[in-house]
Amino acid sequence: MVTSEGYEFDAATAVVSSGKGRWVGAITPGWDIGGNANGGYVLALAGRALRDLAQRPDPITVTAHYLAPAPAGPVEVTGSVVKAGKRFTTVTGSLVQDQREVLRVLATFGDVSVGHGNDWIGGPPPDLPEPSACEPRDTFNGAVPVPLMGRLDVRLAPTRDGSGVVEGWFGFADGRPADTLALLLAADAFPPAYFTLGRGAGWVPTVELTVHVRAVPSPGPLACRFTTRFVQGGFLEEDGEIWSSDGRLVALSRQMALTPRV
Amino acid sequence: MVTSEGYEFDAATAVVSSGKGRWVGAITPGWDIGGNANGGYVLALAGRALRDLAQRPDPITVTAHYLAPAPAGPVEVTGSVVKAGKRFTTVTGSLVQDQREVLRVLATFGDVSVGHGNDWIGGPPPDLPEPSACEPRDTFNGAVPVPLMGRLDVRLAPTRDGSGVVEGWFGFADGRPADTLALLLAADAFPPAYFTLGRGAGWVPTVELTVHVRAVPSPGPLACRFTTRFVQGGFLEEDGEIWSSDGRLVALSRQMALTPRV
Repeated sequence: MVTSEGYEFDAATAVVSSGKGRWVGAITPGWDIGGNANGGYVLALAGRALRDLAQRPDPITVTAHYLAPAPAGPVEVTGSVVKAGKRFTTVTGSLVQDQREVLRVLATFGDVSVGHGNDWIGGPPPDLPEPSACEPRDTFNGAVPVPLMGRLDVRLAPTRDGSGVVEGWFGFADGRPADTLALLLAADAFPPAYFTLGRGAGWVPTVELTVHVRAVPSPGPLACRFTTRFVQGGFLEEDGEIWSSDGRLVALSRQMALTPRV
Repeated sequence: MVTSEGYEFDAATAVVSSGKGRWVGAITPGWDIGGNANGGYVLALAGRALRDLAQRPDPITVTAHYLAPAPAGPVEVTGSVVKAGKRFTTVTGSLVQDQREVLRVLATFGDVSVGHGNDWIGGPPPDLPEPSACEPRDTFNGAVPVPLMGRLDVRLAPTRDGSGVVEGWFGFADGRPADTLALLLAADAFPPAYFTLGRGAGWVPTVELTVHVRAVPSPGPLACRFTTRFVQGGFLEEDGEIWSSDGRLVALSRQMALTPRV
Protein backbone atom coordinates (compact mmCIF):
# COMPACT_ATOMS: atom_id res chain seq x y z
CA MET A 1 0.00 0.00 0.00
CA VAL A 2 1.25 3.49 -0.80
CA THR A 3 2.46 5.40 2.24
CA SER A 4 0.28 8.33 3.18
CA GLU A 5 3.22 10.59 4.07
CA GLY A 6 3.49 13.92 2.36
CA TYR A 7 1.28 13.57 -0.69
CA GLU A 8 -1.58 15.97 -1.45
CA PHE A 9 -4.06 13.20 -2.26
CA ASP A 10 -3.47 11.48 1.08
CA ALA A 11 -3.83 14.71 3.02
CA ALA A 12 -7.02 15.60 1.12
CA THR A 13 -8.60 12.19 1.74
CA ALA A 14 -7.38 11.71 5.31
CA VAL A 15 -10.05 10.57 7.74
CA VAL A 16 -10.01 10.19 11.50
CA SER A 17 -12.22 7.76 13.35
CA SER A 18 -14.78 9.54 15.52
CA GLY A 19 -16.54 6.46 16.85
CA LYS A 20 -17.72 3.07 15.68
CA GLY A 21 -18.50 3.39 11.96
CA ARG A 22 -17.86 7.15 11.95
CA TRP A 23 -15.04 9.21 10.50
CA VAL A 24 -14.39 12.92 10.11
CA GLY A 25 -12.47 14.48 7.25
CA ALA A 26 -12.57 17.51 5.01
CA ILE A 27 -13.24 18.32 1.42
CA THR A 28 -10.04 20.23 0.78
CA PRO A 29 -9.87 23.38 -1.36
CA GLY A 30 -8.25 22.84 -4.73
CA TRP A 31 -9.89 19.52 -5.64
CA ASP A 32 -12.84 21.20 -7.32
CA ILE A 33 -14.22 22.18 -10.69
CA GLY A 34 -15.80 25.61 -10.44
CA GLY A 35 -16.16 25.40 -6.66
CA ASN A 36 -17.64 21.91 -6.33
CA ALA A 37 -15.41 19.02 -5.36
CA ASN A 38 -14.71 16.52 -8.11
CA GLY A 39 -16.91 13.44 -7.78
CA GLY A 40 -14.02 11.00 -8.01
CA TYR A 41 -12.16 12.84 -5.26
CA VAL A 42 -15.20 12.78 -2.96
CA LEU A 43 -15.61 9.07 -3.65
CA ALA A 44 -11.94 8.45 -2.79
CA LEU A 45 -12.42 10.29 0.49
CA ALA A 46 -15.44 8.18 1.40
CA GLY A 47 -13.62 5.13 0.03
CA ARG A 48 -10.71 5.62 2.40
CA ALA A 49 -13.02 5.53 5.42
CA LEU A 50 -14.91 2.51 4.06
CA ARG A 51 -11.63 0.72 3.35
CA ASP A 52 -10.75 1.18 7.02
CA LEU A 53 -14.12 -0.30 7.88
CA ALA A 54 -13.79 -3.25 5.50
CA GLN A 55 -10.22 -4.03 6.58
CA ARG A 56 -9.35 -5.21 3.08
CA PRO A 57 -6.95 -3.40 0.74
CA ASP A 58 -8.83 -2.92 -2.52
CA PRO A 59 -12.19 -1.47 -3.55
CA ILE A 60 -13.23 -4.33 -5.84
CA THR A 61 -16.54 -2.81 -6.91
CA VAL A 62 -17.75 0.55 -5.68
CA THR A 63 -21.01 2.28 -6.57
CA ALA A 64 -21.78 5.86 -5.55
CA HIS A 65 -24.99 7.80 -6.03
CA TYR A 66 -24.37 11.55 -6.09
CA LEU A 67 -26.96 13.46 -4.11
CA ALA A 68 -25.62 17.00 -3.75
CA PRO A 69 -22.63 19.08 -4.83
CA ALA A 70 -19.98 19.60 -2.15
CA PRO A 71 -17.89 22.72 -1.61
CA ALA A 72 -14.78 22.65 0.57
CA GLY A 73 -15.41 22.05 4.26
CA PRO A 74 -15.66 19.39 6.97
CA VAL A 75 -17.49 16.16 6.26
CA GLU A 76 -18.53 13.09 8.16
CA VAL A 77 -18.48 9.57 6.74
CA THR A 78 -20.62 6.88 8.32
CA GLY A 79 -20.49 3.26 7.33
CA SER A 80 -21.57 -0.23 8.26
CA VAL A 81 -20.60 -3.72 7.24
CA VAL A 82 -23.21 -5.50 5.14
CA LYS A 83 -21.37 -8.81 5.03
CA ALA A 84 -17.87 -9.89 6.01
CA GLY A 85 -17.20 -13.04 4.02
CA LYS A 86 -14.20 -15.28 3.53
CA ARG A 87 -12.88 -13.37 0.52
CA PHE A 88 -14.79 -10.09 0.40
CA THR A 89 -16.34 -7.55 2.73
CA THR A 90 -19.35 -5.59 1.53
CA VAL A 91 -20.04 -2.23 3.16
CA THR A 92 -22.36 0.69 2.74
CA GLY A 93 -21.67 4.25 3.71
CA SER A 94 -22.58 7.83 3.36
CA LEU A 95 -20.71 11.14 3.19
CA VAL A 96 -22.50 14.05 4.83
CA GLN A 97 -21.65 17.76 4.84
CA ASP A 98 -23.59 20.27 6.96
CA GLN A 99 -26.29 17.66 7.57
CA ARG A 100 -26.75 17.21 3.83
CA GLU A 101 -25.93 13.82 2.32
CA VAL A 102 -23.53 14.21 -0.59
CA LEU A 103 -22.86 10.61 -1.49
CA ARG A 104 -24.31 7.17 -0.74
CA VAL A 105 -21.96 4.27 -1.42
CA LEU A 106 -22.33 0.51 -1.73
CA ALA A 107 -19.01 -1.29 -2.11
CA THR A 108 -17.28 -4.63 -1.88
CA PHE A 109 -13.64 -4.70 -0.78
CA GLY A 110 -11.14 -7.51 -1.20
CA ASP A 111 -7.60 -8.18 -2.34
CA VAL A 112 -7.13 -8.06 -6.11
CA SER A 113 -3.58 -9.39 -5.93
CA VAL A 114 -4.53 -12.90 -4.81
CA GLY A 115 -6.44 -13.94 -7.93
CA HIS A 116 -5.49 -16.94 -9.99
CA GLY A 117 -4.35 -16.79 -13.60
CA ASN A 118 -6.22 -18.09 -16.65
CA ASP A 119 -6.57 -14.49 -17.85
CA TRP A 120 -8.12 -13.50 -21.16
CA ILE A 121 -7.77 -9.90 -22.34
CA GLY A 122 -10.06 -9.00 -25.22
CA GLY A 123 -8.59 -5.64 -26.19
CA PRO A 124 -5.44 -3.53 -26.00
CA PRO A 125 -4.69 -0.46 -23.87
CA PRO A 126 -5.29 2.88 -25.59
CA ASP A 127 -2.53 3.71 -28.06
CA LEU A 128 -1.52 7.12 -26.70
CA PRO A 129 1.15 9.61 -27.67
CA GLU A 130 3.87 10.00 -25.02
CA PRO A 131 2.69 12.18 -22.10
CA SER A 132 4.97 15.00 -23.25
CA ALA A 133 3.11 15.08 -26.57
CA CYS A 134 -0.32 15.35 -24.89
CA GLU A 135 -2.16 18.46 -23.74
CA PRO A 136 -2.60 19.17 -20.00
CA ARG A 137 -6.29 19.19 -19.09
CA ASP A 138 -6.21 22.66 -17.55
CA THR A 139 -6.17 24.27 -20.98
CA PHE A 140 -8.83 21.99 -22.50
CA ASN A 141 -12.09 23.68 -21.63
CA GLY A 142 -11.36 27.34 -21.36
CA ALA A 143 -14.50 28.52 -19.61
CA VAL A 144 -14.73 26.95 -16.14
CA PRO A 145 -11.71 27.00 -13.80
CA VAL A 146 -10.48 23.48 -12.98
CA PRO A 147 -8.40 23.83 -9.78
CA LEU A 148 -8.43 20.02 -9.58
CA MET A 149 -5.93 20.03 -12.40
CA GLY A 150 -3.39 21.71 -10.15
CA ARG A 151 -3.38 18.51 -8.09
CA LEU A 152 -3.27 16.13 -11.04
CA ASP A 153 -1.17 15.57 -14.08
CA VAL A 154 -3.85 14.73 -16.63
CA ARG A 155 -2.68 14.84 -20.24
CA LEU A 156 -5.13 14.51 -23.07
CA ALA A 157 -4.49 12.81 -26.38
CA PRO A 158 -5.95 14.63 -29.39
CA THR A 159 -9.71 14.01 -29.61
CA ARG A 160 -11.67 13.34 -32.76
CA ASP A 161 -14.85 15.40 -33.18
CA GLY A 162 -17.94 13.24 -32.96
CA SER A 163 -16.08 10.22 -31.60
CA GLY A 164 -17.47 10.17 -28.07
CA VAL A 165 -13.98 9.18 -26.93
CA VAL A 166 -11.50 10.96 -24.64
CA GLU A 167 -8.11 9.39 -23.98
CA GLY A 168 -5.06 10.41 -22.03
CA TRP A 169 -2.73 9.90 -19.10
CA PHE A 170 -3.56 10.18 -15.41
CA GLY A 171 -1.07 10.93 -12.65
CA PHE A 172 -0.68 13.11 -9.58
CA ALA A 173 1.07 16.50 -9.92
CA ASP A 174 3.25 15.73 -6.91
CA GLY A 175 4.32 12.35 -8.24
CA ARG A 176 2.31 10.21 -5.82
CA PRO A 177 2.08 6.68 -7.20
CA ALA A 178 -1.46 5.52 -8.01
CA ASP A 179 -2.86 2.81 -5.76
CA THR A 180 -6.27 1.20 -5.99
CA LEU A 181 -7.87 4.00 -3.96
CA ALA A 182 -6.60 6.57 -6.48
CA LEU A 183 -8.39 4.66 -9.25
CA LEU A 184 -11.69 5.96 -7.84
CA LEU A 185 -10.44 9.47 -8.60
CA ALA A 186 -8.93 8.58 -11.97
CA ALA A 187 -12.33 7.26 -13.07
CA ASP A 188 -13.80 10.76 -12.88
CA ALA A 189 -10.85 13.08 -13.61
CA PHE A 190 -11.13 13.54 -17.37
CA PRO A 191 -13.33 15.95 -19.31
CA PRO A 192 -16.60 14.27 -20.29
CA ALA A 193 -16.34 12.28 -23.51
CA TYR A 194 -19.69 13.94 -24.28
CA PHE A 195 -17.80 17.15 -25.04
CA THR A 196 -16.38 15.56 -28.21
CA LEU A 197 -19.91 15.29 -29.62
CA GLY A 198 -20.22 19.01 -30.32
CA ARG A 199 -23.35 19.51 -28.22
CA GLY A 200 -22.00 22.01 -25.76
CA ALA A 201 -19.77 21.61 -22.74
CA GLY A 202 -21.90 22.47 -19.71
CA TRP A 203 -21.98 20.66 -16.40
CA VAL A 204 -22.57 16.92 -16.81
CA PRO A 205 -23.81 15.91 -13.35
CA THR A 206 -23.06 12.33 -12.35
CA VAL A 207 -26.07 10.41 -11.06
CA GLU A 208 -24.18 7.20 -10.35
CA LEU A 209 -20.60 6.01 -10.76
CA THR A 210 -19.41 2.42 -10.49
CA VAL A 211 -15.73 1.49 -10.49
CA HIS A 212 -14.41 -2.07 -10.75
CA VAL A 213 -10.81 -2.38 -9.61
CA ARG A 214 -9.11 -5.22 -11.48
CA ALA A 215 -5.44 -4.99 -10.48
CA VAL A 216 -2.94 -2.97 -8.42
CA PRO A 217 -1.36 -0.32 -10.69
CA SER A 218 2.35 -0.50 -11.36
CA PRO A 219 4.29 2.80 -11.03
CA GLY A 220 3.98 5.39 -13.77
CA PRO A 221 1.14 7.24 -15.47
CA LEU A 222 -2.15 5.45 -16.15
CA ALA A 223 -3.42 5.18 -19.72
CA CYS A 224 -7.15 5.96 -19.76
CA ARG A 225 -9.96 5.83 -22.27
CA PHE A 226 -13.49 7.15 -21.66
CA THR A 227 -16.32 6.50 -24.12
CA THR A 228 -19.90 7.74 -24.40
CA ARG A 229 -22.02 5.86 -26.92
CA PHE A 230 -25.61 6.56 -25.98
CA VAL A 231 -27.04 10.01 -25.29
CA GLN A 232 -30.78 9.48 -24.95
CA GLY A 233 -33.65 11.14 -23.12
CA GLY A 234 -31.34 13.44 -21.22
CA PHE A 235 -29.10 10.64 -19.91
CA LEU A 236 -25.74 9.38 -21.00
CA GLU A 237 -23.29 6.71 -19.91
CA GLU A 238 -19.54 7.10 -19.82
CA ASP A 239 -17.44 3.94 -19.78
CA GLY A 240 -13.83 4.07 -18.65
CA GLU A 241 -10.84 1.77 -19.01
CA ILE A 242 -7.75 2.46 -16.93
CA TRP A 243 -4.46 0.67 -17.68
CA SER A 244 -1.16 0.85 -15.87
CA SER A 245 2.25 1.17 -17.52
CA ASP A 246 2.88 -2.59 -17.39
CA GLY A 247 0.02 -3.03 -19.87
CA ARG A 248 -2.43 -4.38 -17.29
CA LEU A 249 -6.05 -3.33 -17.03
CA VAL A 250 -6.39 -1.88 -13.52
CA ALA A 251 -9.97 -0.60 -13.53
CA LEU A 252 -13.21 -0.35 -15.45
CA SER A 253 -15.69 2.40 -14.71
CA ARG A 254 -19.16 3.35 -15.83
CA GLN A 255 -21.17 6.36 -14.86
CA MET A 256 -24.68 7.49 -15.63
CA ALA A 257 -24.90 11.25 -15.97
CA LEU A 258 -27.31 13.91 -17.13
CA THR A 259 -26.73 15.81 -20.35
CA PRO A 260 -26.16 19.54 -19.93
CA ARG A 261 -29.27 21.71 -20.18
CA VAL A 262 -29.57 23.02 -23.74
CA MET B 1 -47.28 0.46 -16.75
CA VAL B 2 -47.94 -3.18 -17.53
CA THR B 3 -50.87 -4.63 -15.63
CA SER B 4 -49.94 -7.22 -13.06
CA GLU B 5 -52.92 -9.44 -13.85
CA GLY B 6 -52.29 -13.01 -14.72
CA TYR B 7 -48.64 -13.07 -15.74
CA GLU B 8 -46.08 -15.39 -14.13
CA PHE B 9 -43.46 -12.66 -13.66
CA ASP B 10 -45.88 -10.43 -11.77
CA ALA B 11 -47.01 -13.27 -9.52
CA ALA B 12 -43.40 -14.28 -8.84
CA THR B 13 -42.32 -10.73 -7.97
CA ALA B 14 -45.48 -9.73 -6.06
CA VAL B 15 -44.81 -8.04 -2.73
CA VAL B 16 -47.18 -7.05 0.05
CA SER B 17 -46.46 -4.21 2.43
CA SER B 18 -45.93 -5.46 5.98
CA GLY B 19 -45.20 -2.11 7.58
CA LYS B 20 -43.34 1.11 6.85
CA GLY B 21 -40.44 0.23 4.55
CA ARG B 22 -41.16 -3.51 4.77
CA TRP B 23 -42.57 -5.96 2.26
CA VAL B 24 -43.04 -9.71 2.16
CA GLY B 25 -42.86 -11.83 -0.96
CA ALA B 26 -41.57 -15.18 -2.10
CA ILE B 27 -38.87 -16.55 -4.30
CA THR B 28 -41.07 -18.72 -6.45
CA PRO B 29 -40.08 -22.19 -7.66
CA GLY B 30 -39.22 -22.32 -11.35
CA TRP B 31 -37.17 -19.10 -11.58
CA ASP B 32 -33.92 -20.87 -10.75
CA ILE B 33 -30.82 -22.33 -12.31
CA GLY B 34 -29.94 -25.57 -10.55
CA GLY B 35 -32.02 -24.70 -7.46
CA ASN B 36 -30.83 -21.12 -6.87
CA ALA B 37 -33.02 -18.26 -8.01
CA ASN B 38 -31.70 -16.29 -10.97
CA GLY B 39 -30.01 -13.07 -9.87
CA GLY B 40 -31.97 -10.88 -12.25
CA TYR B 41 -35.24 -12.33 -11.00
CA VAL B 42 -34.29 -11.73 -7.36
CA LEU B 43 -33.32 -8.16 -8.25
CA ALA B 44 -36.67 -7.62 -9.99
CA LEU B 45 -38.47 -8.85 -6.85
CA ALA B 46 -36.55 -6.43 -4.64
CA GLY B 47 -36.92 -3.77 -7.32
CA ARG B 48 -40.71 -4.02 -7.24
CA ALA B 49 -40.77 -3.30 -3.51
CA LEU B 50 -38.27 -0.45 -3.88
CA ARG B 51 -40.29 1.00 -6.76
CA ASP B 52 -43.28 1.12 -4.41
CA LEU B 53 -41.10 2.92 -1.91
CA ALA B 54 -39.71 5.41 -4.43
CA GLN B 55 -43.11 6.15 -5.96
CA ARG B 56 -41.54 6.66 -9.38
CA PRO B 57 -42.09 4.34 -12.35
CA ASP B 58 -38.61 3.45 -13.61
CA PRO B 59 -35.43 2.03 -12.07
CA ILE B 60 -33.03 4.54 -13.66
CA THR B 61 -29.88 3.05 -12.16
CA VAL B 62 -29.88 0.01 -9.90
CA THR B 63 -26.88 -1.66 -8.27
CA ALA B 64 -27.14 -4.95 -6.41
CA HIS B 65 -24.44 -6.75 -4.46
CA TYR B 66 -25.12 -10.49 -4.25
CA LEU B 67 -24.43 -11.89 -0.81
CA ALA B 68 -25.91 -15.38 -0.78
CA PRO B 69 -27.70 -17.79 -3.11
CA ALA B 70 -31.46 -17.99 -2.63
CA PRO B 71 -33.62 -21.10 -2.98
CA ALA B 72 -37.41 -20.87 -3.25
CA GLY B 73 -39.17 -19.60 -0.15
CA PRO B 74 -40.50 -16.54 1.64
CA VAL B 75 -38.43 -13.36 1.70
CA GLU B 76 -38.62 -9.96 3.29
CA VAL B 77 -37.56 -6.74 1.56
CA THR B 78 -36.72 -3.71 3.66
CA GLY B 79 -36.01 -0.31 2.21
CA SER B 80 -35.52 3.34 3.02
CA VAL B 81 -35.45 6.56 1.05
CA VAL B 82 -31.98 8.11 0.78
CA LYS B 83 -33.16 11.25 -1.02
CA ALA B 84 -36.45 12.25 -2.62
CA GLY B 85 -35.55 14.98 -5.10
CA LYS B 86 -37.47 16.92 -7.72
CA ARG B 87 -36.73 14.46 -10.50
CA PHE B 88 -35.34 11.32 -8.86
CA THR B 89 -35.73 9.31 -5.70
CA THR B 90 -32.76 7.36 -4.41
CA VAL B 91 -33.42 4.37 -2.18
CA THR B 92 -31.53 1.55 -0.56
CA GLY B 93 -32.88 -1.83 0.34
CA SER B 94 -32.17 -5.35 1.24
CA LEU B 95 -33.70 -8.74 0.51
CA VAL B 96 -33.50 -11.23 3.36
CA GLN B 97 -34.39 -14.92 3.45
CA ASP B 98 -34.35 -16.92 6.72
CA GLN B 99 -32.46 -14.08 8.41
CA ARG B 100 -29.74 -14.26 5.77
CA GLU B 101 -29.25 -11.22 3.54
CA VAL B 102 -29.33 -12.24 -0.12
CA LEU B 103 -29.09 -8.88 -1.83
CA ARG B 104 -28.21 -5.30 -0.92
CA VAL B 105 -29.46 -2.69 -3.39
CA LEU B 106 -28.76 0.99 -4.03
CA ALA B 107 -31.01 2.49 -6.69
CA THR B 108 -32.30 5.73 -8.15
CA PHE B 109 -35.82 5.76 -9.58
CA GLY B 110 -37.36 8.31 -11.93
CA ASP B 111 -39.38 8.58 -15.12
CA VAL B 112 -37.41 7.81 -18.27
CA SER B 113 -40.22 8.92 -20.56
CA VAL B 114 -39.98 12.62 -19.71
CA GLY B 115 -36.48 13.24 -21.10
CA HIS B 116 -35.76 15.80 -23.78
CA GLY B 117 -34.41 14.97 -27.23
CA ASN B 118 -30.97 15.85 -28.62
CA ASP B 119 -30.15 12.12 -28.70
CA TRP B 120 -26.93 10.67 -30.09
CA ILE B 121 -26.70 6.93 -30.60
CA GLY B 122 -23.18 5.68 -31.24
CA GLY B 123 -23.93 2.13 -32.31
CA PRO B 124 -26.63 -0.09 -33.78
CA PRO B 125 -28.72 -2.81 -32.10
CA PRO B 126 -27.38 -6.34 -32.50
CA ASP B 127 -28.07 -7.74 -35.96
CA LEU B 128 -29.90 -10.91 -34.97
CA PRO B 129 -31.53 -13.70 -36.95
CA GLU B 130 -35.31 -13.80 -36.55
CA PRO B 131 -36.36 -15.37 -33.22
CA SER B 132 -37.60 -18.48 -35.05
CA ALA B 133 -34.07 -19.01 -36.43
CA CYS B 134 -32.43 -18.79 -32.97
CA GLU B 135 -31.92 -21.56 -30.43
CA PRO B 136 -33.94 -21.60 -27.17
CA ARG B 137 -31.62 -21.27 -24.18
CA ASP B 138 -32.86 -24.42 -22.48
CA THR B 139 -30.84 -26.57 -24.83
CA PHE B 140 -27.69 -24.43 -24.72
CA ASN B 141 -25.76 -25.77 -21.77
CA GLY B 142 -26.72 -29.35 -21.42
CA ALA B 143 -25.44 -30.04 -17.90
CA VAL B 144 -27.35 -27.91 -15.39
CA PRO B 145 -31.15 -27.72 -15.45
CA VAL B 146 -32.41 -24.20 -16.15
CA PRO B 147 -36.03 -24.13 -14.94
CA LEU B 148 -35.90 -20.34 -15.41
CA MET B 149 -36.12 -20.97 -19.12
CA GLY B 150 -39.61 -22.40 -18.69
CA ARG B 151 -40.68 -18.89 -17.67
CA LEU B 152 -38.79 -17.05 -20.39
CA ASP B 153 -38.52 -17.14 -24.12
CA VAL B 154 -34.78 -16.58 -24.56
CA ARG B 155 -33.47 -17.37 -28.01
CA LEU B 156 -29.77 -17.38 -28.72
CA ALA B 157 -28.11 -16.29 -31.93
CA PRO B 158 -25.22 -18.52 -33.02
CA THR B 159 -22.10 -17.73 -30.96
CA ARG B 160 -18.57 -17.49 -32.27
CA ASP B 161 -15.94 -19.40 -30.27
CA GLY B 162 -13.53 -17.05 -28.54
CA SER B 163 -15.65 -13.96 -29.15
CA GLY B 164 -16.76 -13.23 -25.59
CA VAL B 165 -20.15 -12.26 -27.07
CA VAL B 166 -23.61 -13.79 -26.56
CA GLU B 167 -26.59 -12.33 -28.42
CA GLY B 168 -30.23 -13.17 -28.65
CA TRP B 169 -33.84 -12.32 -27.95
CA PHE B 170 -35.50 -11.93 -24.56
CA GLY B 171 -39.20 -12.36 -23.87
CA PHE B 172 -41.55 -14.00 -21.39
CA ALA B 173 -42.88 -17.48 -22.15
CA ASP B 174 -46.44 -16.35 -21.34
CA GLY B 175 -46.24 -13.31 -23.60
CA ARG B 176 -46.06 -10.69 -20.86
CA PRO B 177 -44.81 -7.42 -22.36
CA ALA B 178 -41.48 -6.23 -20.97
CA ASP B 179 -41.61 -3.09 -18.84
CA THR B 180 -38.69 -1.35 -17.17
CA LEU B 181 -38.88 -3.67 -14.14
CA ALA B 182 -38.46 -6.70 -16.43
CA LEU B 183 -35.22 -5.20 -17.77
CA LEU B 184 -33.61 -6.03 -14.42
CA LEU B 185 -34.32 -9.69 -15.18
CA ALA B 186 -33.35 -9.46 -18.85
CA ALA B 187 -29.93 -8.15 -17.81
CA ASP B 188 -29.10 -11.48 -16.17
CA ALA B 189 -31.08 -14.05 -18.16
CA PHE B 190 -28.56 -15.12 -20.78
CA PRO B 191 -25.78 -17.69 -20.50
CA PRO B 192 -22.51 -16.01 -19.50
CA ALA B 193 -20.59 -14.60 -22.46
CA TYR B 194 -17.59 -16.16 -20.68
CA PHE B 195 -18.78 -19.56 -21.89
CA THR B 196 -17.84 -18.63 -25.47
CA LEU B 197 -14.18 -18.37 -24.41
CA GLY B 198 -13.75 -22.14 -24.11
CA ARG B 199 -12.63 -22.11 -20.50
CA GLY B 200 -15.38 -24.23 -19.04
CA ALA B 201 -18.96 -23.46 -18.18
CA GLY B 202 -19.22 -23.67 -14.40
CA TRP B 203 -21.13 -21.34 -12.12
CA VAL B 204 -20.18 -17.68 -12.69
CA PRO B 205 -21.30 -16.03 -9.43
CA THR B 206 -22.28 -12.39 -9.73
CA VAL B 207 -20.62 -10.11 -7.18
CA GLU B 208 -22.35 -6.94 -8.36
CA LEU B 209 -24.83 -6.05 -11.09
CA THR B 210 -25.71 -2.55 -12.22
CA VAL B 211 -28.53 -1.83 -14.68
CA HIS B 212 -29.19 1.55 -16.29
CA VAL B 213 -32.68 1.83 -17.72
CA ARG B 214 -32.68 4.21 -20.68
CA ALA B 215 -36.20 3.94 -22.16
CA VAL B 216 -39.54 2.15 -21.79
CA PRO B 217 -39.52 -0.93 -24.06
CA SER B 218 -41.99 -1.10 -26.91
CA PRO B 219 -43.92 -4.38 -27.30
CA GLY B 220 -42.13 -7.38 -28.77
CA PRO B 221 -38.96 -9.32 -28.02
CA LEU B 222 -35.87 -7.48 -26.80
CA ALA B 223 -32.63 -7.74 -28.78
CA CYS B 224 -29.74 -8.30 -26.37
CA ARG B 225 -25.97 -8.43 -26.56
CA PHE B 226 -23.67 -9.42 -23.68
CA THR B 227 -19.90 -9.03 -23.92
CA THR B 228 -16.99 -10.07 -21.69
CA ARG B 229 -13.66 -8.53 -22.62
CA PHE B 230 -11.47 -8.83 -19.54
CA VAL B 231 -10.98 -12.02 -17.54
CA GLN B 232 -8.26 -11.25 -15.06
CA GLY B 233 -7.25 -12.39 -11.60
CA GLY B 234 -10.37 -14.47 -11.17
CA PHE B 235 -12.77 -11.63 -12.04
CA LEU B 236 -14.64 -10.78 -15.18
CA GLU B 237 -17.08 -8.11 -16.31
CA GLU B 238 -20.09 -8.69 -18.52
CA ASP B 239 -21.57 -5.70 -20.32
CA GLY B 240 -25.10 -5.85 -21.68
CA GLU B 241 -27.08 -3.84 -24.20
CA ILE B 242 -30.83 -4.34 -24.41
CA TRP B 243 -32.82 -2.91 -27.31
CA SER B 244 -36.54 -2.96 -27.97
CA SER B 245 -38.20 -3.74 -31.27
CA ASP B 246 -38.55 -0.07 -32.21
CA GLY B 247 -34.74 0.12 -32.40
CA ARG B 248 -34.34 2.02 -29.12
CA LEU B 249 -31.74 1.23 -26.51
CA VAL B 250 -33.74 0.42 -23.38
CA ALA B 251 -31.01 -0.63 -20.94
CA LEU B 252 -27.31 -1.02 -20.36
CA SER B 253 -25.99 -3.45 -17.79
CA ARG B 254 -22.64 -4.38 -16.34
CA GLN B 255 -21.85 -7.04 -13.84
CA MET B 256 -18.70 -8.08 -12.05
CA ALA B 257 -18.52 -11.83 -11.54
CA LEU B 258 -16.08 -14.49 -10.49
CA THR B 259 -14.65 -16.93 -12.97
CA PRO B 260 -15.58 -20.56 -12.38
CA ARG B 261 -13.14 -22.56 -10.27
CA VAL B 262 -10.76 -24.40 -12.57
